[in-house]
Amino acid sequence: MESLHHLVVVGGGFGGLQLVNALRGAPVRITLIDRRNHHLFQPLLYQVATTVLATSEVAWPIRHLYRNRAEVTTLLDQVVGVDPAAKTVSLADGGSVAYDTLVLATGATHAYFGHDEWEPFAPGLKTLEDATTIRRRLLLAFERAELATDAAERAALLTFVIIGAGPTGVELAGIIAELAQRTLPDEFRHIDTRQTKVMLVEAGPRILAGFSEPLSDYARRSLEKLGVEVRTGVPVTSCTADGVTIGDVFVPARTIVWAAGVQASPAARWLGIPADRAGRAIVSPDLSAPGLPDVFVIGDTAAVMQEDGKPVPGIAPAAKQQGAYLVRLIRARLAGKPSPGPFRYRHQGSLATIGRRAAIIELGRFRLKGAFAWWLWGIAHIYFLIGTRSRFAVAWSWLWTFLSGQHSARLITQKETIPQREIGKPVVGDTASRDREAATK
Amino acid sequence: MESLHHLVVVGGGFGGLQLVNALRGAPVRITLIDRRNHHLFQPLLYQVATTVLATSEVAWPIRHLYRNRAEVTTLLDQVVGVDPAAKTVSLADGGSVAYDTLVLATGATHAYFGHDEWEPFAPGLKTLEDATTIRRRLLLAFERAELATDAAERAALLTFVIIGAGPTGVELAGIIAELAQRTLPDEFRHIDTRQTKVMLVEAGPRILAGFSEPLSDYARRSLEKLGVEVRTGVPVTSCTADGVTIGDVFVPARTIVWAAGVQASPAARWLGIPADRAGRAIVSPDLSAPGLPDVFVIGDTAAVMQEDGKPVPGIAPAAKQQGAYLVRLIRARLAGKPSPGPFRYRHQGSLATIGRRAAIIELGRFRLKGAFAWWLWGIAHIYFLIGTRSRFAVAWSWLWTFLSGQHSARLITQKETIPQREIGKPVVGDTASRDREAATK
Repeated sequence: MESLHHLVVVGGGFGGLQLVNALRGAPVRITLIDRRNHHLFQPLLYQVATTVLATSEVAWPIRHLYRNRAEVTTLLDQVVGVDPAAKTVSLADGGSVAYDTLVLATGATHAYFGHDEWEPFAPGLKTLEDATTIRRRLLLAFERAELATDAAERAALLTFVIIGAGPTGVELAGIIAELAQRTLPDEFRHIDTRQTKVMLVEAGPRILAGFSEPLSDYARRSLEKLGVEVRTGVPVTSCTADGVTIGDVFVPARTIVWAAGVQASPAARWLGIPADRAGRAIVSPDLSAPGLPDVFVIGDTAAVMQEDGKPVPGIAPAAKQQGAYLVRLIRARLAGKPSPGPFRYRHQGSLATIGRRAAIIELGRFRLKGAFAWWLWGIAHIYFLIGTRSRFAVAWSWLWTFLSGQHSARLITQKETIPQREIGKPVVGDTASRDREAATK
Repeated sequence: MESLHHLVVVGGGFGGLQLVNALRGAPVRITLIDRRNHHLFQPLLYQVATTVLATSEVAWPIRHLYRNRAEVTTLLDQVVGVDPAAKTVSLADGGSVAYDTLVLATGATHAYFGHDEWEPFAPGLKTLEDATTIRRRLLLAFERAELATDAAERAALLTFVIIGAGPTGVELAGIIAELAQRTLPDEFRHIDTRQTKVMLVEAGPRILAGFSEPLSDYARRSLEKLGVEVRTGVPVTSCTADGVTIGDVFVPARTIVWAAGVQASPAARWLGIPADRAGRAIVSPDLSAPGLPDVFVIGDTAAVMQEDGKPVPGIAPAAKQQGAYLVRLIRARLAGKPSPGPFRYRHQGSLATIGRRAAIIELGRFRLKGAFAWWLWGIAHIYFLIGTRSRFAVAWSWLWTFLSGQHSARLITQKETIPQREIGKPVVGDTASRDREAATK
């Protein structure tokens, strides 16, 4: 194996896996490095955060995928730098790995536009832990509201604010509203979960700005039908333990979710090449780093321009197309053939769901909305899930949720069962007042 | 509702739920308090720790179970004391709840026999977090072994020590051995996971002491066939970050699991009544606290003697029988009828599994072992799982694991991806040595 060309791929997301998958049979040995042991199917992560799916239904151990590919070595480790002169990547624990060709597919994380102090109060949704954190806060808010004796406190606990109305924000708002309206009402004795307020806040002029106006309007009406309060054209100016300030208006809310911005991984900094405002490495038309023909950057951490001057969107199909392009390029190089020309992005369509019954799909002039779009969305996502079992498991979970109206993964886990930070005062009053409340229902 | 008799049940384990379930229709309002939002099916928790099942397959939100029982109020809160004179229980946040009848079913946790300093190195298995902690350590050990360049370090990473050979210890050892022997070998390039050493250590003279000697011997032989090293009659004298001392012999091991002892919850202390050595409240023959006829203690936190002078075992069926007994007693009292006489435990048999193909079952003189016992065990456990969906989901997970030999829930989650405490030195050496290693395989 020693003499074979050594490809090092950093990041087991959609781009990295597509690359490794399609290089099967090529005369190359591959080292795939990721700081997590699993590939995460991020488009469905919001369903973990909202108790529909279990964590193991959207994540899959990376090394298991390549158990039958002896030329692929998977390493669980964190890359902290690249030395393009020595052609090595440095690992967090002091070691390093040499490469002949390097592909950085290290993704992005959520960003707070210079307000990192908001993060503790408004967690984003990028990892499995983010999802279980949001799930815990969501479920605990209802539990605490059930215990609360103060009406204002109870209202704040039953207010959920989602910041950012891209697909993730819209999907979160829709499912949280349905949870409160349909799944939970029978289970509480002191509160009516149907009085829950779900707010979706967007600084831009409309929700789902990536879609055409008619579909964006339809999505807004569908959300409002579910009881979601949509606020557009007004920025969030502060997030605290007590709530959110939207423009000038303070909204008391105990649960806030951040779905507004992303920041690329530091790939550009490692390479010492220019980046755009979101930190994405500005790459050459063949996705290589300028001046480093053996180093490529793909996926959410690369800034790639389309022919019309618009950036390639940070979505899974774009990362996969870039991975597939590099397969052609690397195979050509290894065979001594000419390169395949510049990378070209083909948009396969945009999808978003609103709750459990509606979705919107748009591809050029083709537009679809409503229940049929929702089923198409579901089938597409099950199809793209990696791993036979995950497909069946997710299909089964969805079918169950759809038929029963019940959610299966409603677990409050991790150490803090009732974090003291978020409780300002005793929430359970004297027994008499509790009993009175119960008696009046 | 106010005038109805108020039953407060603390703890949503097997005993507490049996009680609430079977009181359906009784003239009583019920408040069920648990510090977790879910009932945990503890007999299968070891399968979460060993990547067979997902967390949501063994846990079920308690309030969901009683959504159609308007007289049942579920509270997520922690009880910290009881005032038998005032007839109230105190909650962690300062509130209190009054009762007419109180049932404490607060369970037990793992105990280190005066060596609490061992806990960070040898976690026990009682909660969902315990299970994901053990799962994380287990999977990280293999990941780090793959990165290790030092042979001794690699051997220590591939040594797993289970302390305590009751059913949980035996079940953990069996599945970990199978994971190393069957599931993982193809997935690693620098290590051979079949060289993994799984040790099961028991201070007593034999494993599974609750079973007859022939079955205990059969279990030991079955474990040894799976490659487990069984050490009986020798106590563990220390646990550290480096390994375990068994008698006088130090065994370098990076992953240790504690399955040896339990300590009851502080129910006896709350009530000011005598407890046995494990902290279990010594109750009257009708399960009431001595001198407190309206307060009952059941399940793992109660010490109940059988007619032959042996204690009732701390297992799910015993807790459920006690819950069912209290239903008869409470119904009789409410109706002004005589009490049903003292609680009598009927042993329904003992079960334990060894890996994926063998189990032992014993009920009096009836003994069963091998594959048929394994299937019986599986069917029994699926039957007893609460919630229709959980039954199907677990059946599906098991069938998948059985047919494919693959485990589905192999996720390393929670913040520490590579905890620095456990890494003594850089585990990745220079690239050349790594490449040499890879080349020699």
